[in-house]
Amino acid sequence: MKKLINDPNQVVKEMLEGIVAAHPRRLKQLPGTSVLVRSDAPVEGKVGLVSGGGSGHEPSHAGYVGPGMLDAAVSGEVFTSPTPDQIFAAIKAVDSGKGVLLIIKNYTGDVMNFEMAAELAEAEGIAVAKVIVNDDVAVEDSTYTTGRRGIAGTVFVHKIAGAAAEQGASLEEVEAVANKVIANVKSMGMALTPCTVPAAGKPGFELGANEMEIGMGIHGEPGIEKTEIKTAEDIAAALCGKVLADLDIKEKEKTAVMINGLGATPLMELYIVYKKVAALLAENKVEVHDTFVGEYMTSLEMAGCSVTILRLDEQLTLLLEVPADTLVWK
Amino acid sequence: MKKLINDPNQVVKEMLEGIVAAHPRRLKQLPGTSVLVRSDAPVEGKVGLVSGGGSGHEPSHAGYVGPGMLDAAVSGEVFTSPTPDQIFAAIKAVDSGKGVLLIIKNYTGDVMNFEMAAELAEAEGIAVAKVIVNDDVAVEDSTYTTGRRGIAGTVFVHKIAGAAAEQGASLEEVEAVANKVIANVKSMGMALTPCTVPAAGKPGFELGANEMEIGMGIHGEPGIEKTEIKTAEDIAAALCGKVLADLDIKEKEKTAVMINGLGATPLMELYIVYKKVAALLAENKVEVHDTFVGEYMTSLEMAGCSVTILRLDEQLTLLLEVPADTLVWK
Repeated sequence: MKKLINDPNQVVKEMLEGIVAAHPRRLKQLPGTSVLVRSDAPVEGKVGLVSGGGSGHEPSHAGYVGPGMLDAAVSGEVFTSPTPDQIFAAIKAVDSGKGVLLIIKNYTGDVMNFEMAAELAEAEGIAVAKVIVNDDVAVEDSTYTTGRRGIAGTVFVHKIAGAAAEQGASLEEVEAVANKVIANVKSMGMALTPCTVPAAGKPGFELGANEMEIGMGIHGEPGIEKTEIKTAEDIAAALCGKVLADLDIKEKEKTAVMINGLGATPLMELYIVYKKVAALLAENKVEVHDTFVGEYMTSLEMAGCSVTILRLDEQLTLLLEVPADTLVWK
Repeated sequence: MKKLINDPNQVVKEMLEGIVAAHPRRLKQLPGTSVLVRSDAPVEGKVGLVSGGGSGHEPSHAGYVGPGMLDAAVSGEVFTSPTPDQIFAAIKAVDSGKGVLLIIKNYTGDVMNFEMAAELAEAEGIAVAKVIVNDDVAVEDSTYTTGRRGIAGTVFVHKIAGAAAEQGASLEEVEAVANKVIANVKSMGMALTPCTVPAAGKPGFELGANEMEIGMGIHGEPGIEKTEIKTAEDIAAALCGKVLADLDIKEKEKTAVMINGLGATPLMELYIVYKKVAALLAENKVEVHDTFVGEYMTSLEMAGCSVTILRLDEQLTLLLEVPADTLVWK
């Protein structure tokens, strides 16, 4: 296992300490927890936004904590849901009395633990709403999921719901716009190589020297098919085609596009993928309002990418454009 | 070779087309060249800044083109200097009459080709100044270099010289502040795995299953020693120790720190490295003004990192803090 680590069982703890050491003006850690909150939390008069999940997807989610996006990110162990008490601590830390929205990726453990935390918070009189992101169109049900998985499209939910909250929207309004994003964002990924959870010490699955997997999840959950490696154009067409079909997108509709690297894929390759995605969208007469290319939701050092397309209306466009002030999204 | 590409000999061309397709409001490509310039170039009354070099180091250098940083990035083939005619085209495109500064990483091919381009430009009456970045303290002379190599510290030169230029400084002033950064910035890197140039089809060097190399260059040039993999703390101490010694840094001096990923190293690991770097700086009573952790100057899909430390005075601190508006640095 070739990793820049000290103790495989302490990677999340040490990572969080490193993040806070690097960005003390932006982020603070709730003592004794794996929760990072924006340094001015709770923000008076603002709905609080909490997201999180297993670690290993950095910059998700701490990279999106800050004005205009999340108020708190809760980190579980690598590829493992955070516990309800941690999520509850995050909710309490960001509630200013206007309520808290939980943005949950659709994995059974996350959904269960975030719901338990919501119940704990509601018992203390905090208003809590929940949205569940299920943007991955590859498969129905999966290793850790009933229904569709939540992947990189989640970042658009953070951005747009975060902008609405920052502008003073009510909990119901922020929940509604988050659900609008979820209804209009679809993604699909593929992997060229597996990744190794530090505490496991060996890759979670195997791919042959000339093999790739289409539809793979961000924890290495099985996808649609293993095949010989194809060209970037063929891969882009496969991912983009299924996403567009599922979105049932029409001519002249407006979109935002994200080409997300899974951890070990050079930016050069992500842009080569985008070149074909842009051509396909142009062929379909779909308008691209903005494009995001980089690492937004990774799987440790997995090589591969995902394509996310978000259908935009006027409200979503305006909220997407509001500046944020986080480590990754500005 | 597991890569998201189409034709190994067209990767740079296709990447540049993908970048322009993704960011048409920010960047434009000079027709028939591998030069990307900010969309409003040339900017009246501003010194133009041109950098570049071989491709494969993305987001360097196109990710730093925009207000407050570079006016143009020139891309050669992967790990290959751009030709003088391409650099000359960039100089002409960004000169507004106030002159152009070339920021060159110290590799023999880059230095030669940028100098030839400068001569072509001067023959046409354009004032050109050059600075050569040589921040890598690992070795003197190397595979492609006489003297020390230029690596991730170059990004601080882009940022600070870019801020000075944006504020209206003269060519001499911008050159002087760039040279001040170069005199005060030092870096050192290490690799866990090699990388594969697409057109070569196989890794440029080899490392054993449990082996790493300290002092490795960003093109896989030999470093100081190959050893068994050590802990992140030992690696951080080795890199940071040599950088601090070379900078001859004193107590209470102020610095900016960059932990740069080489392409395949998860952000989690970079923050674990930073945790130890921060502790070492605190032990040495060195002040850290700001910290940058992420992929700034990569080597395709190499796993590994570099540590860069910049000594700051008041002028450099102020210029570092001025916002920029580029893809990566904002």
